[in-house]
Amino acid sequence: MTHAIPLGLVGLGTIARNQHLPSLEDVPAFRLAAIASRNASLDGLPGYADIDAMLAAEPDLGAVSLCTPPQGRFAQAAAALRAGKHVMLEKPPGASVSEVMALDRLAQAQGVTLFATWHSREAAAVEEARALLAGATIRRVRIDWKEDVRHWHPGQQWIWQAGGLGVFDPGINALSILTRILPDPVFPLSALLEVPENCQAPIAARLSLQTSRGAPVEAEFDWRQTGPQTWDIHVETDGPEVLLREGGAKLFVDGAARISAEDREYRRLYARFAELIAAGQRDVDLAPLQLVADAFLLGERQMTEPFHD
Amino acid sequence: MTHAIPLGLVGLGTIARNQHLPSLEDVPAFRLAAIASRNASLDGLPGYADIDAMLAAEPDLGAVSLCTPPQGRFAQAAAALRAGKHVMLEKPPGASVSEVMALDRLAQAQGVTLFATWHSREAAAVEEARALLAGATIRRVRIDWKEDVRHWHPGQQWIWQAGGLGVFDPGINALSILTRILPDPVFPLSALLEVPENCQAPIAARLSLQTSRGAPVEAEFDWRQTGPQTWDIHVETDGPEVLLREGGAKLFVDGAARISAEDREYRRLYARFAELIAAGQRDVDLAPLQLVADAFLLGERQMTEPFHD
Repeated sequence: MTHAIPLGLVGLGTIARNQHLPSLEDVPAFRLAAIASRNASLDGLPGYADIDAMLAAEPDLGAVSLCTPPQGRFAQAAAALRAGKHVMLEKPPGASVSEVMALDRLAQAQGVTLFATWHSREAAAVEEARALLAGATIRRVRIDWKEDVRHWHPGQQWIWQAGGLGVFDPGINALSILTRILPDPVFPLSALLEVPENCQAPIAARLSLQTSRGAPVEAEFDWRQTGPQTWDIHVETDGPEVLLREGGAKLFVDGAARISAEDREYRRLYARFAELIAAGQRDVDLAPLQLVADAFLLGERQMTEPFHD
Repeated sequence: MTHAIPLGLVGLGTIARNQHLPSLEDVPAFRLAAIASRNASLDGLPGYADIDAMLAAEPDLGAVSLCTPPQGRFAQAAAALRAGKHVMLEKPPGASVSEVMALDRLAQAQGVTLFATWHSREAAAVEEARALLAGATIRRVRIDWKEDVRHWHPGQQWIWQAGGLGVFDPGINALSILTRILPDPVFPLSALLEVPENCQAPIAARLSLQTSRGAPVEAEFDWRQTGPQTWDIHVETDGPEVLLREGGAKLFVDGAARISAEDREYRRLYARFAELIAAGQRDVDLAPLQLVADAFLLGERQMTEPFHD
């Protein structure tokens, strides 16, 4: 094992506290060395108001992990890359596809690692589903991704603002799994976005996509589901019927349970970040964000009742 | 000169009649051999109701040019590519970025040419502007693209529907020039889209973009301009000041007129299509459509008064 890489964490919201901090404790390749957060800090760690202050005061940082909202992420990531740091991006990797393409070129020019993460791709059953589908002919795909926004995103204003993605914030997790497990690329044919009249971002969306070989992919994202929560991807093929449940944690093949495992998504992300750094590689797959941008581009918008947290 | 390539034209609307037909008469590399149009035909030419009928009845076609609205273009282009035809796409090349990426992969697999055209890039002064800016440091860019939609798009319902782009239909011409002449890539920071309350697509848009080196690019697209029409791109640099007017037909350098030439955009497009076919190449640059998709993704929408043609 080489010496642990000192890492600076930017943003100390829900995802940082629930996922990034415990995962960093478990991954020996990194040592959490500093925090940048406007209004929070951690005992025993140097804390800075923003990333520029952190980069100036902590020249020994080897890597930076960004957990801030996507709006404004570009400037932070660019500052870290220009300072020669390896950078890991929480999903979505930015507020636009073209800004992340610009970041990727910058990382290449700087000779550092950029890792645009899709945590749901690290769910326990995703790689097995991909292997099962590798040689299959896809007949149809059905995605149901329905959860209660008040439970999962209480008080998060940025998700409702322009650039905040709305229900595509969880929906992009489904799209990140879809684009990982299918053997063919997909693109949207049509989309219906339901937008609360006091918000910029949709609270529900229905997408009709198609694989490049013509198989239909229907996706329903809804943030108004109380009671049981649903994160299912159902793939019918000429061979096995593949069902991923609970966001990719469980796999059923032809109706029989095959995989059910605990969540290690963020531990795997940080382990992968360390591997990319060691190999001098970048990993920036923009397909999930591209599908969301395309859904916004061609989608029909329907006003729906106002949302109040 | 080799034998002229028999070409099938799909879509017989304004742009086909005003631009494609006269240009095809002037470009000896192609021979217009058939038309596919739901409700129009041309004297002396075989006419078909749709592209599938045309492809079935005219096996000798070497190339297909699509002038239909972007919604539904994918299926037409895919049919032509699968039939082994070289394909030229009117702008915008599709209803989404990912569908054109899928088309490009299909063209590659088929070993045929796919040409996603941007006619404004063929305006007389664009290449000279590009040459002037090649070594320059960009300080700021200002785009004003303001025209009267009732004059240029009378009765065109599809431009107001989902996937129709609205004011980005002309605005994407400015973005196609911008991404051709600037030495650095750009991405949007923010966008304001004004959408008539009875439409899906914006009638006006203001974009704040940035080059990867940090120079600001401000763009105003407006479809409500009566009187003089404006299609200007103004680039301030550490060297020459470059002003493109009239959609790239006129060039002013440091205030002095340098180029003013007649419109040969579509003749140049068809000549370039022939070159690409001869060289066995594809030309699919999606940067302009990517910027529009990103503007829809992160843009703030503001309702404005209803539009009636």
